[in-house]
Amino acid sequence: MSDFQEWARHVAGLTEQTLAELLPPAGSNPQRLHDAMRYSTLGGGKRVRPMLAFAAGLVTNADIERVKIVSSAVEMIHAYSLIHDDLPCMDDDVLRRGRPTCHIEFDEATALLAGDALQALAFELVSTHKLADLADVQLEMLQLFIRACGSHGMAGGQAIDLANVGLAQSITLPELEFMHMQKTGALIRAAVMLGARCGKGSGTNDATNGVTNSGKDVEPETLASLDRYAKCIGLAFQVVDDVLDCESNTEKLGKTVGKDQNANKPTYVSLMGLNPAKQFANELLNDALGALKNFDQRADRLRQLAEFIVRREH
Amino acid sequence: MSDFQEWARHVAGLTEQTLAELLPPAGSNPQRLHDAMRYSTLGGGKRVRPMLAFAAGLVTNADIERVKIVSSAVEMIHAYSLIHDDLPCMDDDVLRRGRPTCHIEFDEATALLAGDALQALAFELVSTHKLADLADVQLEMLQLFIRACGSHGMAGGQAIDLANVGLAQSITLPELEFMHMQKTGALIRAAVMLGARCGKGSGTNDATNGVTNSGKDVEPETLASLDRYAKCIGLAFQVVDDVLDCESNTEKLGKTVGKDQNANKPTYVSLMGLNPAKQFANELLNDALGALKNFDQRADRLRQLAEFIVRREH
Repeated sequence: MSDFQEWARHVAGLTEQTLAELLPPAGSNPQRLHDAMRYSTLGGGKRVRPMLAFAAGLVTNADIERVKIVSSAVEMIHAYSLIHDDLPCMDDDVLRRGRPTCHIEFDEATALLAGDALQALAFELVSTHKLADLADVQLEMLQLFIRACGSHGMAGGQAIDLANVGLAQSITLPELEFMHMQKTGALIRAAVMLGARCGKGSGTNDATNGVTNSGKDVEPETLASLDRYAKCIGLAFQVVDDVLDCESNTEKLGKTVGKDQNANKPTYVSLMGLNPAKQFANELLNDALGALKNFDQRADRLRQLAEFIVRREH
Repeated sequence: MSDFQEWARHVAGLTEQTLAELLPPAGSNPQRLHDAMRYSTLGGGKRVRPMLAFAAGLVTNADIERVKIVSSAVEMIHAYSLIHDDLPCMDDDVLRRGRPTCHIEFDEATALLAGDALQALAFELVSTHKLADLADVQLEMLQLFIRACGSHGMAGGQAIDLANVGLAQSITLPELEFMHMQKTGALIRAAVMLGARCGKGSGTNDATNGVTNSGKDVEPETLASLDRYAKCIGLAFQVVDDVLDCESNTEKLGKTVGKDQNANKPTYVSLMGLNPAKQFANELLNDALGALKNFDQRADRLRQLAEFIVRREH
């Protein structure tokens, strides 16, 4: 896995550098807003979503310059969601990645506007940079990306999550899954699909609709397999989060009390129990790998990422 | 003007109806979020931006179904900006159009997410519905729209406005103009340009680049004139707001103290004086009408709207 770790570091570095270039320059007017946007987007994070976009792009021989744009755009949406999530009216967090959260470092109004402006900037990048040979394909990429962020995607998932506080025992597993598929799963799927669609089709016959694919766009069956992979990985990511939240607190506190359990929020651990949740994460890993079974070694980074996401320890 | 008022009512009714159809259905999951989005977008407002989009669309013979989409999208952005503006960390307003503001009627977290989701939905509509015969043109429409909302548009203007509190006497007229061009002007320009680009070119020679326009897209000189019109009208709208804010309070309180002056925010009245501000609004009206001088009677609604915006009394 050391080869994988080197690749992961490379992608994280590339993402940091691209974000620094694409964000409004430090000190440019309106300075406080732009500084807040940079503060919350640069300098850290696991960069899992950019890794997924780059790994998916490898499957479709995507142009790396295009993948840099979409992975930065996805990461800006992620940063915006964290800024708004941390606000006093939401999770009221004062620390993020070991640093003061945006509204602590700046102020609430600036944090609110920085999140708003990051959402717009992310979409602007995907509308402005040429990311597909056909403008129609690029419009489809935008649709997919924007939908992943709205009330049937990330923002909707956050609203359901809010409504779930205090309902730890009364919601069902399918309801929990639906919430996570929207809250974090939608953006993870967008990262994979956008990375893949920066590439081209192989130019072979497209069996699903009987017409010859010109090689201009990625084949539907390729996209369908990647989407299945992304769904499994998105869910696995959350299940593992719940497991780690439970276990790290168990070690520290000597009892099974995690942050979400304190808020009486439903988690996979609270609904399934610890060991079944671990088992479920492994099943999702197997399903994710199964979705890649028709791909050659170009999908190896996606396979390694799936292992990384499920086996990680923080 | 009774003919104009009838048209304005017609556009407002059409906008209300289209918004009701395009917003997530009432009661659909996540219910509280969707209810908040509907609450803040439906049921009122002057609908000035939709009127501008419809009026600009008349100049280019735009398909009314397309104009309905873009004017609704622009109005969703306007609604999102008001929701976030009204939050306690911003203007902390409890009433809007005679009803409780979104965070009072629902709660702060829901209001935050409703604004976030409305921004995404507005862009989603303009990416999903076919609005131009060429996908390239539609991508340009999206770019223009999204830029108008970000840190170099509306969100940036709000940040500058925040920074101006307490600086009523120390900023210059050009700085005030720059703030308003971003805060409200950018979205007004977007309304005009998006409405116009739902139409087609006349198919005549395009003198600016020497090639024959196929009639697929509106001629650059038409767009440039409409953009000049929109800039003047956007600024006039704000100057008149400042004048009305001053005068309505003058009548009620017997002294020249408006809401913005209470906050010690710079206004055209505080920087220029009341009568020069009125004079400036009239000059902007003349400039706006001048920008339309090469258009035939198809621009009459735009002309009437300019008069309406400058002559209004509330």
